[in-house]
Amino acid sequence: MNSHQNEIRFQPDGIRIRVGNGATILEAAQRAGIVLNSFCGGIGTCGKCLVELEDQAEPVKACQYHVTSDLVVTIPDSSRFFEQKILEEGITGTAKLDPSVRKDYLELTPPSLDDLRSDDRRLIDAVHESAKQSDEAVEPDTSVEADQNGAAEKGGEPDKIALKIDRDLLGKLPGVLRENDFRVTAVRNGNRVFAVEPGDTSGELFGVAVDVGTTTVVANLVDLNSGKTVAVASQTNPQVTYGDDVISRIQHSRDNPDGLEQLHSLIIGCLNELVQETCREAGVSAESIYELVAAGNATMQHLVLAVPVVQIAEAPYVSAFSAGVNASAQQLGLKINPHDNVYVMPSVAAHVGGDTVAVTLSAAMRHSSSINLALDIGTNGEIVLGNRDRLLTCSTAAGPAFEGARIRQGMRGAAGAIERVHINDDVEIAVIGGGRAAGICGSGLIDALAELLNADVIDPSGKLLSGDDLGENIPAAIRRRVIEVEGRPAFVLVEKDQAKQDEPITLTQKDIREVQLGKGAIYAGMVTLMHLLEIEPDQISRLYLAGAFGNYIRPESARRIGLLPNIELGRIQSIGNAAGTGAREVLLSRLARKHAKNLSVEMEYIELAGRAEFQDIFGKSMMFPKP
Amino acid sequence: MNSHQNEIRFQPDGIRIRVGNGATILEAAQRAGIVLNSFCGGIGTCGKCLVELEDQAEPVKACQYHVTSDLVVTIPDSSRFFEQKILEEGITGTAKLDPSVRKDYLELTPPSLDDLRSDDRRLIDAVHESAKQSDEAVEPDTSVEADQNGAAEKGGEPDKIALKIDRDLLGKLPGVLRENDFRVTAVRNGNRVFAVEPGDTSGELFGVAVDVGTTTVVANLVDLNSGKTVAVASQTNPQVTYGDDVISRIQHSRDNPDGLEQLHSLIIGCLNELVQETCREAGVSAESIYELVAAGNATMQHLVLAVPVVQIAEAPYVSAFSAGVNASAQQLGLKINPHDNVYVMPSVAAHVGGDTVAVTLSAAMRHSSSINLALDIGTNGEIVLGNRDRLLTCSTAAGPAFEGARIRQGMRGAAGAIERVHINDDVEIAVIGGGRAAGICGSGLIDALAELLNADVIDPSGKLLSGDDLGENIPAAIRRRVIEVEGRPAFVLVEKDQAKQDEPITLTQKDIREVQLGKGAIYAGMVTLMHLLEIEPDQISRLYLAGAFGNYIRPESARRIGLLPNIELGRIQSIGNAAGTGAREVLLSRLARKHAKNLSVEMEYIELAGRAEFQDIFGKSMMFPKP
Repeated sequence: MNSHQNEIRFQPDGIRIRVGNGATILEAAQRAGIVLNSFCGGIGTCGKCLVELEDQAEPVKACQYHVTSDLVVTIPDSSRFFEQKILEEGITGTAKLDPSVRKDYLELTPPSLDDLRSDDRRLIDAVHESAKQSDEAVEPDTSVEADQNGAAEKGGEPDKIALKIDRDLLGKLPGVLRENDFRVTAVRNGNRVFAVEPGDTSGELFGVAVDVGTTTVVANLVDLNSGKTVAVASQTNPQVTYGDDVISRIQHSRDNPDGLEQLHSLIIGCLNELVQETCREAGVSAESIYELVAAGNATMQHLVLAVPVVQIAEAPYVSAFSAGVNASAQQLGLKINPHDNVYVMPSVAAHVGGDTVAVTLSAAMRHSSSINLALDIGTNGEIVLGNRDRLLTCSTAAGPAFEGARIRQGMRGAAGAIERVHINDDVEIAVIGGGRAAGICGSGLIDALAELLNADVIDPSGKLLSGDDLGENIPAAIRRRVIEVEGRPAFVLVEKDQAKQDEPITLTQKDIREVQLGKGAIYAGMVTLMHLLEIEPDQISRLYLAGAFGNYIRPESARRIGLLPNIELGRIQSIGNAAGTGAREVLLSRLARKHAKNLSVEMEYIELAGRAEFQDIFGKSMMFPKP
Repeated sequence: MNSHQNEIRFQPDGIRIRVGNGATILEAAQRAGIVLNSFCGGIGTCGKCLVELEDQAEPVKACQYHVTSDLVVTIPDSSRFFEQKILEEGITGTAKLDPSVRKDYLELTPPSLDDLRSDDRRLIDAVHESAKQSDEAVEPDTSVEADQNGAAEKGGEPDKIALKIDRDLLGKLPGVLRENDFRVTAVRNGNRVFAVEPGDTSGELFGVAVDVGTTTVVANLVDLNSGKTVAVASQTNPQVTYGDDVISRIQHSRDNPDGLEQLHSLIIGCLNELVQETCREAGVSAESIYELVAAGNATMQHLVLAVPVVQIAEAPYVSAFSAGVNASAQQLGLKINPHDNVYVMPSVAAHVGGDTVAVTLSAAMRHSSSINLALDIGTNGEIVLGNRDRLLTCSTAAGPAFEGARIRQGMRGAAGAIERVHINDDVEIAVIGGGRAAGICGSGLIDALAELLNADVIDPSGKLLSGDDLGENIPAAIRRRVIEVEGRPAFVLVEKDQAKQDEPITLTQKDIREVQLGKGAIYAGMVTLMHLLEIEPDQISRLYLAGAFGNYIRPESARRIGLLPNIELGRIQSIGNAAGTGAREVLLSRLARKHAKNLSVEMEYIELAGRAEFQDIFGKSMMFPKP
């Protein structure tokens, strides 16, 4: 492995990324946020990740092609996980471009003695006609049916959309119609017409889908006419000023009179900057953005809306809201079209937020007949298990080990982090961004433990062997790496560079224990849900790994250390930033929004804290599985 | 007739009114805004207006009992027009107390490990349960049915109300629940929960129904728990500063940059004062008012919402809106509960406003199998004709004669106005408030013309006869009253009081012509609608006279001069401030609100200006009918 950097450009996305020599195209795509099929777990047997290279006639397997130079890589839809899933499984509803926000360019007949309809009725009739012509599925006007006196209602128009004009728009309506010879573009969200623009602006229709993470906020600017993402931007969540995790932010809001408002202002400011950045990049006016969909954990979603969070951190831990919320962009201080809607995703519980609903939505678990499992690992690990009949979900305190915290030389998955470890006769490592290693991140840690288990340097109890405990077959180069740090065994991953007088990078016994705690909790959560659903691991059709961590993890290593259950590698699929994908689906499809709403009600939250069974399994799960 | 004033107190309403000697109890009740049955036209034959007097064992006919002293009068429901109509015709929907605004006192189970529902879901579940227990008809949650992929939706709860919590409320929800041990009162409007109050406030639930007239604004404070009006207040519309009629107000808004805002602020200020006045009178806090329903002509309704009105006065005359509008009290500047809803009635056309919809609603014309006609006379005369199969409506330029304008000594129906004229051997008059006459109002004018026609002082062409043209049978006292004013004949209604050196009150030839123009237009409007519906006057089952004018008019005089068609007196019924009654129904009944919405779409507006037939009939209608 080598630190030389190569630029990979993915088409038709236009995304560029730099990776070191030896990385696969599959890994590079993951880094770029593009989820490729890897049904075989990236071992080259399924042939589903084919990509085209500029200078080669035949397509190549992305998982097998190691990068050694700059490349232009074209990825067909058939190799993309989400696109292909839609093609094969026919989740047409979710796939259909049917955004809640619509524009209709209208050439209205001006009023005359023969046609004295009021401005609002004239507009609504025309919008309805336009929707009918575009064969759009419209919401029926149920007000007539809902009549309670049982009498047959005359004159009802059951095929009419129950459109309503925003009260704020009424004041502008007579002017904008007459100043533009009754040629205007009506903008609506659902059944609410909220803007009328001069002339034909139907080509400019954008939305933003945001994954509001505790650590990182990612915004996708999406063209709602084409469904394509036109720009992506991300920022560190500025609330980190008040602490890395949700608990410290909640404490800040509790201990300071203005705490809630401060946290709210910070995230709104961040959203405004991300909107500006994506608009600048794509050459789009922020006025052309008509909706923003936000998915995050419950705490982040509360803070976006300035709703108190204290009760999330106090037993028995509940949210102020779990339904999806529509809020006014103007009221929240968002600098997009002032009449715009902000839709905050529905959630399940205080510890299973809108992000998990979005993950479940994007993996289409609600429509699958076979049983699937989704796992999103951060400080907490959210787990969803089930199929269209029943979906269980829980949250486990994964512990911060996988984010590099509480690990002696741990760090986040940033430049300088060891992200891959391979042990053969000696130790080989890959470092993010190449160059000298500065520490180790979650995926490197899992790799290291899996390889050390395979090399018999760690035993199934998690003990780091040394001296005579080490087997005779262990190569000398490996044996030499077992040293002592603070009186206890440690394993040297990167030796000290004598010239630079730096420190070696070592893995300590305590580091191993931290990983055991985290992976034990997640595994015990999965087993608890499996028990409740009365299934065995081999009945899990597919295991989805969501989030940045899911993208970088090596499934076989995760399975080896018992973070994942013992199922075929070919059934494990990384699905990237699935929370963002789900939020984009909700932005693009009214049906997806309904699915999300239904998911939030249907997903059964299992509180692990109250279960003796969980504690029992947790104790056993801290062990490593036998090979 | 005598000017002595007697105090009449109506029970159980508790309303007091002063009337002169000789007025009937029926007339006094009309003055007090209480609509009694008068199926026989007040001639004493139907026996439907029975009332009880404190000192009499037997009930008396209100139309036949002439007041000569102070009285306490008890009116049973069976003599009240609206209450009795509901009893007999069974318009149960409209009658049923089912306000859009509801309160539910809830004793919620606090969250526990076994019940981790979010605050919003906990609240909504409890409201739903409360509604179910009170056997309230609830709106079905249609979102599941509306699913577009055709797949059977699981887990849907079709009997669940599609309740939504206001985004503004979410921020307060965790605090108010926990500070009150989860004992709170939820307030909702339709399916929107918009307030949560500490403890049990379910007893305090009020609304305001307002008739926003061009001249007078009348507010009813209504207890939504009992359906009873607890206070009434009225004020002159302060917009009169900018002109008496809608046209001059529209001109003011057109000619002044701040004109619209000025007119809007004036009416909002007026509504605030009326709310304060009724609250003070009834001892109710304005915070306990949760909805305000406003009915007015299109211009008034636009000005309440600050929506431009210029297009109402420019050909071809259209409204900015005709749908019912829900607006925020806070946004409009109304000083009631800041989260309250203001509902502005749906209307039909620029000249057939929400007040006419309210009149039609209160007369239950949409549910009648027989054909009825409603007439509301002001500066314009709005006419509605039809039954449950079809309802036609039009507006005629009645001219201001009936409001006393353009009449030489005309005045509004206020103290000092001649309101009744009777001619026998000489002229007898009744003056509002008693005392010396200062002028003549609409009802007096109609009476005077009818009596002069009967006395052969006016001929069917409208000519005021004098000298030899007067028949020989005409008593000397009458003959002496025909004088000359400005070279043309005039009739002296009240002779000069020599002691006071005042002016006589006379009726001029020009005054008669003005009345002919106004009554001709109204009559022609009615005939046009009858032609379109292909009916004759005798097919009109009932003719409703709405508004203050309808209350004071003597039906036989109106019929004599040809303002009303030639139908039996017993079919003519004054229905008082029916616009206010309709607004109150909408406040008290969700079904009535739906009926109003449907009415506004179903009522067919007939534009008379474009009809040759109307011009033709108008020309003929200016003549007076032969006796």
